[in-house]
Amino acid sequence: MKAEERQEVLTRLLKIEGQIKGIARMVEEERYCIDILHQIVAVQGALDRVARRTMRQHLETCVAEAFQSKAQQQRSQKVDELMEMFSRFGK
Amino acid sequence: MKAEERQEVLTRLLKIEGQIKGIARMVEEERYCIDILHQIVAVQGALDRVARRTMRQHLETCVAEAFQSKAQQQRSQKVDELMEMFSRFGK
Amino acid sequence: MKAEERQEVLTRLLKIEGQIKGIARMVEEERYCIDILHQIVAVQGALDRVARRTMRQHLETCVAEAFQSKAQQQRSQKVDELMEMFSRFGK
Amino acid sequence: MKAEERQEVLTRLLKIEGQIKGIARMVEEERYCIDILHQIVAVQGALDRVARRTMRQHLETCVAEAFQSKAQQQRSQKVDELMEMFSRFGK
Repeated sequence: MKAEERQEVLTRLLKIEGQIKGIARMVEEERYCIDILHQIVAVQGALDRVARRTMRQHLETCVAEAFQSKAQQQRSQKVDELMEMFSRFGK
Repeated sequence: MKAEERQEVLTRLLKIEGQIKGIARMVEEERYCIDILHQIVAVQGALDRVARRTMRQHLETCVAEAFQSKAQQQRSQKVDELMEMFSRFGK
Repeated sequence: MKAEERQEVLTRLLKIEGQIKGIARMVEEERYCIDILHQIVAVQGALDRVARRTMRQHLETCVAEAFQSKAQQQRSQKVDELMEMFSRFGK
Repeated sequence: MKAEERQEVLTRLLKIEGQIKGIARMVEEERYCIDILHQIVAVQGALDRVARRTMRQHLETCVAEAFQSKAQQQRSQKVDELMEMFSRFGK
């Protein structure tokens, strides 16, 4: 990851940490369940965006390099990793 | 939420907060993207489990009460809220 | 389900069937993978919408009735079914 | 897609078409909503598996080739397409 991108991701993670603390506070204050669920959905969305940035970096660097190499085994490994991620995020 | 259930949810949220800190550390240490993505998937799963516990409480208390009331409007509101949650979580 | 709603759902399912046939044709014609994936995403969206309509009907009728009954066991069963659906659709 | 893989995907799509017909029959027969939803979840799973096979083929052929080319623009396009798919499948 480039330094700039890394900083952006760290800022987002810090914000997510704050959101988790906020959800805990809502639970303590016995707030309405649906409001708590809305906040959980918001955090899931924020995490998805971090995951997507990380995935894009991964494709542009590690995967691009592996696919340029002649080693068939290295390429298969990248495809397997991508497929696993695709399966976990998708669905 | 019952006190016991609330405590369980708070414990889980505290653990999730720690996991987010762990992901930030991995980003700082420039760890392999796929390892970072695995951790994000783990947090998403942990948040899903908190959401499900909250939803179950909601169904067993607020929704059950609203549906037992004679007020049609109150029931429609609960159905709308559930459908919105169903749409957001479900893909 | 009311007759009108049932007809709407049947019309949508017929359209989805046509979309599946269209995807098979694209595969036979060796079309670009990403175009095929776009069509699969479109069908997933159409199925989600049918699922949501069905779920709404379910909440407004079966669940509402069960929650109005005095039988605790009947209510728990509905909550369990909803939670299972919530877990399957949501991730 | 290799001929063998194409045949496998076509067989699966034909089976999915049959499942959609089965769901329409359940709706006509006014079957229990939750049973209908179970069948929709089954079809979503089957479609996910077809999508994953298609994505794997795509990675192993088109993406691998694009990444081996010197053309930066061609590589960026593949990354953009993958990211779009990643976002759509993964919520």
